[in-house]
Amino acid sequence: MPKSSNWVADNNIEIFYKHWGAMKADIINPFLSSVANVLSTMAMLEVSPGKPSIKNDNISRGDISGIIGMTTDTINGSMAITFPANVVFEIVNRMLGEQVNEINETVTDLVGELTNMVVGGAKGQLEESGYDIGMATPVVVTGKDHEVIHKGQGQNILMPFNSEPGAFYVEVCFDG
Amino acid sequence: MPKSSNWVADNNIEIFYKHWGAMKADIINPFLSSVANVLSTMAMLEVSPGKPSIKNDNISRGDISGIIGMTTDTINGSMAITFPANVVFEIVNRMLGEQVNEINETVTDLVGELTNMVVGGAKGQLEESGYDIGMATPVVVTGKDHEVIHKGQGQNILMPFNSEPGAFYVEVCFDG
Repeated sequence: MPKSSNWVADNNIEIFYKHWGAMKADIINPFLSSVANVLSTMAMLEVSPGKPSIKNDNISRGDISGIIGMTTDTINGSMAITFPANVVFEIVNRMLGEQVNEINETVTDLVGELTNMVVGGAKGQLEESGYDIGMATPVVVTGKDHEVIHKGQGQNILMPFNSEPGAFYVEVCFDG
Repeated sequence: MPKSSNWVADNNIEIFYKHWGAMKADIINPFLSSVANVLSTMAMLEVSPGKPSIKNDNISRGDISGIIGMTTDTINGSMAITFPANVVFEIVNRMLGEQVNEINETVTDLVGELTNMVVGGAKGQLEESGYDIGMATPVVVTGKDHEVIHKGQGQNILMPFNSEPGAFYVEVCFDG
């Protein structure tokens, strides 16, 4: 069953948005439910959201990240999804039935595709709310313990997700 | 003196574009001259282009990258500029008069700004050629020896630049 904004409400994420205002939540929630949708549909991986925060720390270090830029008529932004190696290896195994133990092209291609799918899913939900989002092409970054820092003017929202193989991180930042 | 497409021609870059076609060169050249412009204007750093290639290798590893997504009505893309630590430290020193020896917020902010300026400069040149480009917000990635891989459908063009403190890399990838 596709996860909608109800999934966000059911997971008590909305209470954390109080001080960010409703409009920000309108934009961010579709990304969070899209992550849960894509991973449960494509990888049979159920995820649960951790506590979102305004990012002022370094806890999103991971081994591989998919990054995508977004543009609208009024505001622009970026999203990143960052995985530790063991988590992404399990996702590859579940999606492709392939055992990998190094970050090779199969893994980077898959993270690029996941990133596209997450933003594509969010874009669909956002269009229903009247936001028309242009998607740039994904960029994948690899490297042990790298860190991703969004430099949009707005707040950088960091959302940890938990899953059976471990935690991973989603960050969304929009100007304004 | 601002560097225009003449800078590209003077540096014999255009001959490498033969098999990519004129349209691709029309789009890529403004990014390359914008890199040279921004670094010479903002950091008093003269750069010379190395041999561009279709990226099939791992030579763009660096310690910090600025990444930005782009959208147009017809094609989308991404650009990354990747620096080794010693090169970015010298750029910080030239731009801010500050000695740094670790990748801190001053450095990541500056790389985010440089990325914005490079794409902004290219956007100006591209508008003159009739391409209207939407710019997403920059994302900065840090981590020793990380690698950046563009996952657009088109060819990923890797351009090494040489400068007094050392080499750095620019990658541009557009769909189609």
